[in-house]
Amino acid sequence: MIRLDFEKCGGLIPTIVQDFKTGEILMLAFMNEDAWRHTLETGTATYWSRTRRELWVKGKTSGHVQSVKEIRIDCDDDTVLLKVEQVGGAACHTGYRSCFFKKVEDGSVRVVGEKIFDPKDVYDGLAKSPKIDGKVKSSRCKARES
Amino acid sequence: MIRLDFEKCGGLIPTIVQDFKTGEILMLAFMNEDAWRHTLETGTATYWSRTRRELWVKGKTSGHVQSVKEIRIDCDDDTVLLKVEQVGGAACHTGYRSCFFKKVEDGSVRVVGEKIFDPKDVYDGLAKSPKIDGKVKSSRCKARES
Repeated sequence: MIRLDFEKCGGLIPTIVQDFKTGEILMLAFMNEDAWRHTLETGTATYWSRTRRELWVKGKTSGHVQSVKEIRIDCDDDTVLLKVEQVGGAACHTGYRSCFFKKVEDGSVRVVGEKIFDPKDVYDGLAKSPKIDGKVKSSRCKARES
Repeated sequence: MIRLDFEKCGGLIPTIVQDFKTGEILMLAFMNEDAWRHTLETGTATYWSRTRRELWVKGKTSGHVQSVKEIRIDCDDDTVLLKVEQVGGAACHTGYRSCFFKKVEDGSVRVVGEKIFDPKDVYDGLAKSPKIDGKVKSSRCKARES
């Protein structure tokens, strides 16, 4: 397996997730070594959930997985860039296409992102299942949770 | 000042740096609260160097600064995306345009990035100065050092 420097950040690698076609940044997540191996082996983006302290195959339950099209590693082997196809069109648990839907303008923050789905429609049904990966809703796109 | 959640990651915010025109990911760095304030106030990308434990105005000495064109914040206010103009054309201390110049292909890593300058030409001269921000060369594009 291609080795990364997991030591620098306490066993975790920050992972930038970018839409492979448009170049839009979808989210930031963290991988541990198991998540990295799983991503390489399956071609499906897999992270480490710091809240739940478990491997997190993004979209495993909802079906909104990230199919990995390209993997880049940075100069120091301590950061990963995944270029993905976001199944379902939205990476963020809030329903926005990208987690970065807030823009800083003139000292304030304005929502500019594109909303793809209503979180109620997606998560309210799933919440009945004890195994949903949306159990901790905000973990879906938190850098530290993902 | 727009408040971010610095607590989640030990006082630091992972910051994705993207070319504002092409969408190419240039690097990942970390900001502390001072770096965030400095970036907002000056429009020049400023990070926290974890190696040197000091504020790091990227390119301050070499002139290869990052002029901030747009700032995005993620859903949880714990990750920042800077869209920048990279003065000098290269963000990486190795001379590549992007730190993500290595591509994973068929189980191995291949260099695919565009080299803009020879690091010797840029850093050998600067190394004579005790104040250069390239003193710890690798810190220029390390997620944790930058």
